Amino acid sequence: MSSETDVTDAASPDAASAVDSTDPGQSVRPNFGRITTSGRGNAALSAAMQKVLDGTWAEAREQTRAAMTPDLLNPLGLTMDEQRDHTLTQLQRLADSGMPRLGFSEEDGGTGDTGAALTTFEMLGHLDLSVMVKAGVQWGLFGGAIANLGDSETRKKYLPRVMSLELLGCFAMTEIGQGSDVQNLETTATYDVEAGEFVINTPTPSAEKAYIGNAARDGRLAATFAQLITIEDGEELRHGVHCLLVPIRDEAGNDMPGVTTTDHGYKGGLLGVDNGRIRFDNVRVPREALLNRFGAVDEQGRYSSPIESVGARFFTMLGTLIRGRVSVGAAAGASARTALALATRYSLVRRQFDHPETGRGIPLLEYREHQRRLMPRIARAYAYACAQNAIVAELAEYEKHPDAFDEVRRREMETHAAGIKATVTAFANETITEARLACGGAGYMAENLLTEMRKDCDVFSTFEGDNVVLTQLVGKELLGAYAAEFGNMDQRETVAFAINTVADVVQEKARTSTLWQKLVDAVTDREHTDILDRGNQLELLVDREEHLLETVARRLRKARDQDGSAAFKVFNSAQDHLLQAGRAHMDSWVFARFAEAVDACEDPEAKELMGMLCDLYVLDIVDRDKGWFLEHNRLTTERTKAATAAYNRLCTKLAGRARTLVDAFAVPEFVFEVPMLTGGGVDTLADGAED
Amino acid sequence: MSSETDVTDAASPDAASAVDSTDPGQSVRPNFGRITTSGRGNAALSAAMQKVLDGTWAEAREQTRAAMTPDLLNPLGLTMDEQRDHTLTQLQRLADSGMPRLGFSEEDGGTGDTGAALTTFEMLGHLDLSVMVKAGVQWGLFGGAIANLGDSETRKKYLPRVMSLELLGCFAMTEIGQGSDVQNLETTATYDVEAGEFVINTPTPSAEKAYIGNAARDGRLAATFAQLITIEDGEELRHGVHCLLVPIRDEAGNDMPGVTTTDHGYKGGLLGVDNGRIRFDNVRVPREALLNRFGAVDEQGRYSSPIESVGARFFTMLGTLIRGRVSVGAAAGASARTALALATRYSLVRRQFDHPETGRGIPLLEYREHQRRLMPRIARAYAYACAQNAIVAELAEYEKHPDAFDEVRRREMETHAAGIKATVTAFANETITEARLACGGAGYMAENLLTEMRKDCDVFSTFEGDNVVLTQLVGKELLGAYAAEFGNMDQRETVAFAINTVADVVQEKARTSTLWQKLVDAVTDREHTDILDRGNQLELLVDREEHLLETVARRLRKARDQDGSAAFKVFNSAQDHLLQAGRAHMDSWVFARFAEAVDACEDPEAKELMGMLCDLYVLDIVDRDKGWFLEHNRLTTERTKAATAAYNRLCTKLAGRARTLVDAFAVPEFVFEVPMLTGGGVDTLADGAED
Repeated sequence: MSSETDVTDAASPDAASAVDSTDPGQSVRPNFGRITTSGRGNAALSAAMQKVLDGTWAEAREQTRAAMTPDLLNPLGLTMDEQRDHTLTQLQRLADSGMPRLGFSEEDGGTGDTGAALTTFEMLGHLDLSVMVKAGVQWGLFGGAIANLGDSETRKKYLPRVMSLELLGCFAMTEIGQGSDVQNLETTATYDVEAGEFVINTPTPSAEKAYIGNAARDGRLAATFAQLITIEDGEELRHGVHCLLVPIRDEAGNDMPGVTTTDHGYKGGLLGVDNGRIRFDNVRVPREALLNRFGAVDEQGRYSSPIESVGARFFTMLGTLIRGRVSVGAAAGASARTALALATRYSLVRRQFDHPETGRGIPLLEYREHQRRLMPRIARAYAYACAQNAIVAELAEYEKHPDAFDEVRRREMETHAAGIKATVTAFANETITEARLACGGAGYMAENLLTEMRKDCDVFSTFEGDNVVLTQLVGKELLGAYAAEFGNMDQRETVAFAINTVADVVQEKARTSTLWQKLVDAVTDREHTDILDRGNQLELLVDREEHLLETVARRLRKARDQDGSAAFKVFNSAQDHLLQAGRAHMDSWVFARFAEAVDACEDPEAKELMGMLCDLYVLDIVDRDKGWFLEHNRLTTERTKAATAAYNRLCTKLAGRARTLVDAFAVPEFVFEVPMLTGGGVDTLADGAED
Repeated sequence: MSSETDVTDAASPDAASAVDSTDPGQSVRPNFGRITTSGRGNAALSAAMQKVLDGTWAEAREQTRAAMTPDLLNPLGLTMDEQRDHTLTQLQRLADSGMPRLGFSEEDGGTGDTGAALTTFEMLGHLDLSVMVKAGVQWGLFGGAIANLGDSETRKKYLPRVMSLELLGCFAMTEIGQGSDVQNLETTATYDVEAGEFVINTPTPSAEKAYIGNAARDGRLAATFAQLITIEDGEELRHGVHCLLVPIRDEAGNDMPGVTTTDHGYKGGLLGVDNGRIRFDNVRVPREALLNRFGAVDEQGRYSSPIESVGARFFTMLGTLIRGRVSVGAAAGASARTALALATRYSLVRRQFDHPETGRGIPLLEYREHQRRLMPRIARAYAYACAQNAIVAELAEYEKHPDAFDEVRRREMETHAAGIKATVTAFANETITEARLACGGAGYMAENLLTEMRKDCDVFSTFEGDNVVLTQLVGKELLGAYAAEFGNMDQRETVAFAINTVADVVQEKARTSTLWQKLVDAVTDREHTDILDRGNQLELLVDREEHLLETVARRLRKARDQDGSAAFKVFNSAQDHLLQAGRAHMDSWVFARFAEAVDACEDPEAKELMGMLCDLYVLDIVDRDKGWFLEHNRLTTERTKAATAAYNRLCTKLAGRARTLVDAFAVPEFVFEVPMLTGGGVDTLADGAED
C-alpha cells in the first residue's frame, strides 16, 4: 500500500522550473506552493491522447459529443414519475435522431454499424445512466432479442416500431428466485396443439419476473424467457429456455388479461427507469410469438432445433445477447472517466492548508496521498478504455464476419466480454466513490454530480451478470480451455471436466501469439528499473495467471470420481482461488490491450505519456497484490520496494500532467459547469501557458 | 486475498452432524445442500454475545430499543421537503421523550449521563441517519457548543429551549474555502467598543459558512466560529477562532438583517437534514453573544483567556466537542451492523444454483466467496463495537472526572476518537456497499434499506473531520508523543518537532501497561498454529506499528534545519507512510480493546466464539497487509499461507454461526420486515432446533 522509501526526487523537470516564479502577482502560472502543474493542460497533447482512447469509432464519438446538450445530464430533484417522463423524452429524442438504427442490420431497417452503436451507448455513460439503461433495455435487449432470435417476418413486423419507440418493450429474463441461474428459470411456455397457442405461466412465487426494465410503466410487449414445453403422446417434453413475445399491456397501459405487473418503485438509483415485476397466469400467445431461430414448434406441436443439447442451445442464445454486457461495461467506464475528470479538476483548484513558505493554500493534488488516490485510477481508466475498444472491435468484426470466428475465438470474445464487464463496473463504482470522497463536502452535494453517478452506476455490478458470477465464469472458461461442450455443464460436470484439461493451454496459446511475442521482444530503452520493462511486465502478469490456473486445476482434480456432494465441496473450497485466477487473467488481458494501444500511438509525446500510464497500471497491480508476488517468490522484497518507490514517483510525475490526462477523456465541457468548480471556495486558474 | 491451500476440512463438528439429515421432508433442519447451519441462530448464545457488545450502557440501549418503532425507519419516496418535515417530527419526538437531557449536566437541566447519551445517539444509527445527524447537530454540536463554551448565564438562557427543541440551531464552523483547515477560517467577529457589540462578517466568498445543518430551513440561532478581533489603540488584535451565538432567522423563518442563508438542496443522501450556507454582512450581536469559557472580551474591549497560545486555545475548544466525532463513528458502526445483519439473513434464505446431489438450491452463505465477503466484516464490526464502547467509557469518565486525566491521557482519548471515527466510517461505507452487492438485485431495491443506508452514511467519511485528515492526525500525534505544545504547531513545526522525539515512546509505554502485559502473558490453550495465539497476534500488530513509526520518524528527520518548502516536501513525500502508521496504530488499538472485551466475557461459549472473531479480525489484517508483513520479514511465506488457510477455515466455521453472530447486534426485529427477507424468491427457515 505505501512506501517507506523516500522518493523526494519526484518532481518532473517542468515542475521544477515552474517553482521559480514565486510572486503570485507576476507569475504567468499561479503559484501552487511547491508547484507541480499549472492545471491548464496541454491541448495538443490531450488531443493526441484522445485519439487513442476514441479508437476505431472516433467519428461516432465525435458525432455523439456534438449532439450532447446539458439537458441530457441526470436531472436533480425530480419525483420518480417526473424522472421517468424525462428519461422517456430523452429516449424519444435519441430515437428521432436515428441513433438506434446503428445497432440493427440493413435488412431490418437499420444501418448495421455495431461498433458505432456500442460506442454511442458508451458515450451516454458520460451524462445520464438512466437514459443509457433505458436505451439499452429498449434497443439492446428487447430489440436485440427480436433481431437475434426472431425470424425475418417477426423482425420486419416489430423492429421498425422498436427503433422509432412506437413500441416499448421488456427483456423479461430474470426471475425473483433465479437471479444468476437463468438456465433454471421457472416460467413455462407450454404448447397447446388444439388452440395452436403457447400458454405462459408463472408456476411459483419465485418464478415471477423481477427487476425488468420498462415493466412498471412503459412496456407493451415482453421478450419473455420461459422453459419451452411441448406435449407428445400425453408426455411433457422440456426443451429448455426459449424466448417468446408476450403482450403485457394494451395501448392504454392496462395489464393484459392474465398478466400482472407491479412497480419496483424506488431503487438505489436509476429513477428514470421503470423497473417492475411480471406474473403470467395462463396467458395465451399465438405460435408465432416464439422467437424461433434456435428452436421452433410446428403446428402439430413438434419441436425442432439446429442445436441438439439443451444447454448448448441456451448458451448460444445468450451469446447473441453479448452486446448488453459490453455496453454496460463501456458506459460504466465512461462514468468513471467523468468522475475522475471532475475530481481531478477540483483537486487543481481546491486548496487546503497553507504552504509553510508561501503562506498560500496548497492545491489538493500537490499532496502525495491525493496523487495516490487519483493517478493510479486514471491509469486504470485508460487501460480499461483501450480494452473496451478492443472488445467492441472484436464484436463488430464478429457480427460482420461470423464465419471468420471459430468456436475458440467466439468463446474467447464472450469470456472477455463477461470479464471486462465485471472488471470495469467494479472499478467504476469504487472510482466514483473515491472521486466523491476526494472532493470532500462538495463531493456530497448532488449538484456536483458524483453522488448521482454513484447511485446510478451501483447496479451495474449486479445486472447483465453479477460480477462474482461473471468472474467465476472467466475462471471456468480458462479451465475448460474452449471445450465446445463446456457451456452445457452444471457444476459437477465442470469439476469433472476441469480434471481432464490442462490449465495452461490458454496461456501457451496466448504466449506464442504475435502480440505477446512482439511485446516480449520489444526492448524498451527507457531509464527505469526492470519492472518498468514492458516485456518483464508481461511476464510478471502472465506468470501469475498461469500459476493460479495451474494450482486451481490441481485442486479441482481432487474431485475426480467423487460424488456430487464431495465434488461440490472441492469446488467450493477452491472458489476464491478460481476467482483470483479469473481476475488475474483479466489483468493481463487488459494489460495486453493497453500495451497494444500504446504501441500503436503515433504521436511520440502522447506515446511516452501513455507508456507511463501503462507502467502505473502494472505497478498498481503489483502494489495491490504484493502479498502474492512475494509469497510466491515472483518478486524479491528489494523489487517490491523499488516498485513502490516507482509507483509513488509515477503518481507525482503524472499528477504534473493531470489536466492533460483527463482532458483526453473528452467529456463534454458543460459537465464541468458545476458549483464546486465554478463557485466559492476554489481558485480559478490564472491565464497563462499550458503545461 | 485468496488461498491456494486446500482447506476442505473446514466444517465445524455440529455442521458435520447436521449433514446427516438429508431428507428435506423429515429433517427438522432444512436441507441446505452441504449444510453448514440451520440459519436459526442460538438465542441464548447471541444474548450472551449481545451482553458484550451492549457494554456499560446496556440499560440505555435496552430503553432505546424498546422505544424504537417502524416509523423511525428512513422513509422512502418522500420529496425533500416532506422528508425534512418527517425528520423534524422525529426529532420532536426524541425531545419529548427526554432523550436530549442525557447529554447535558444536571446544572444545565439535563441528567448528565454522557455514556447513555452517546449510546442513544449510536442506536439511532440502526434506523434513520437523517434523524441521527439532525439530533447530533441540534443537541451534540449546537447544544454542545453552548454547554461547553458558554458561561452559566448563557447556558441557563438557552439550553432548556435547545433540549425541548423550541430553539433550533446551527453549528456554523465549516467554510466553503477552509473545509479541513478550521483553524484558518476567515469569518471575523470584530468588537466595536462604542456599541458594545461584535460585528460578524464574511469577508470573502470563500469565508461563507457551508454544509451547515439546520441552516437551510429550521435553524434560528447559529453557534458561529469566527476569528475574534479586538481593537486596542487603533490596532487590530487577533485572538484566533472563537464561537459566538448569532441569530440567523426570526421566528417567522426570515433571514435576520445582514444574514443570507441559502439551501444546499439535494445531497447524496440525508435528505431529512436541511444543510445550507450562511453569509454575514455586518451582523451585530451583543457582547454576551461570545461563548467566553476560553476567551472573553470585557466592556472596554480587552481580551483575556485562560490559555495563552492561540493554537492551544483553539484545540482545547475543539477538544470539548469530541462527542460529535465519537457519535458519528458509533452511528456508522450501528449502520454497518444493520447492513451485515440484513445481508447475512438474506444469505441464509436465498439460494442460487442447485446442489449437484440434492438438486436443491444452495444458500448463498454456503459459498466460500460469500463467507469471505461477510464473515471478516462481521468480525471487524465486533471489534469496532468494542473499541467504540471503550472510547465512550473513557469520554464519560473524562466528563465526570476531568481532573483524573493528565494531558497525556486526554490527548490519547482525543486521538483515538479521531482515529476510530475515520476507521469505522470508512468501514461502514465499504461494508454497506458489500452488503448491498451481496444481496444482488434485491440489494438495489430501496425497500430493502441498504441503498438508503449507503447514501446517508456516505458523508460520515467527510464530516466531523475528513478521514484522511483524521488518520494523519493520529500519525502526527504518535510522532508528537504527547507533547503539550503539539496542538499549536503548523505543518512546518510538526516536522521540526517530530525530529526531536523518539517514535516509540508511545509503544514503549503501551507495552508495559497492564493490559498489554496481561495479553502477552495469557497463554492460550487452543489448538491453533501460533498465529492464533493472542500474545503473538499482539506482537505482530504492535511490531508493525512501531516499525512504521520509527521509519517515518527517520524520514521526517531529514527535514531538520530545512526551510519551509523543503520541509513540506519531506513531509509530503512521507504522507502515505504517516497515514499507514496511523492506520496501523488504530488496528492494534482496536485489537487490544477487542481482546479486552473477549477476556472479560463471562459466558464460556460466547467467549470462545468471540475469540474466534478476534482471530479473524487479526487474520483479516494480515490478509490485507500481507505484502507488508512479507516485505519486512515479519512473516515467512509459510506463515502467510497458513494464515490464509486459517482465515478461510474461520470464515466457514463462523458462517455456521452466522445468524447467532448477527442476532447479537440486537437490531430491532422490525428492520428485517423487508421484501427481500419476507417476499418471493427466498425460502423461509423451517421450524426446528437452533444451532
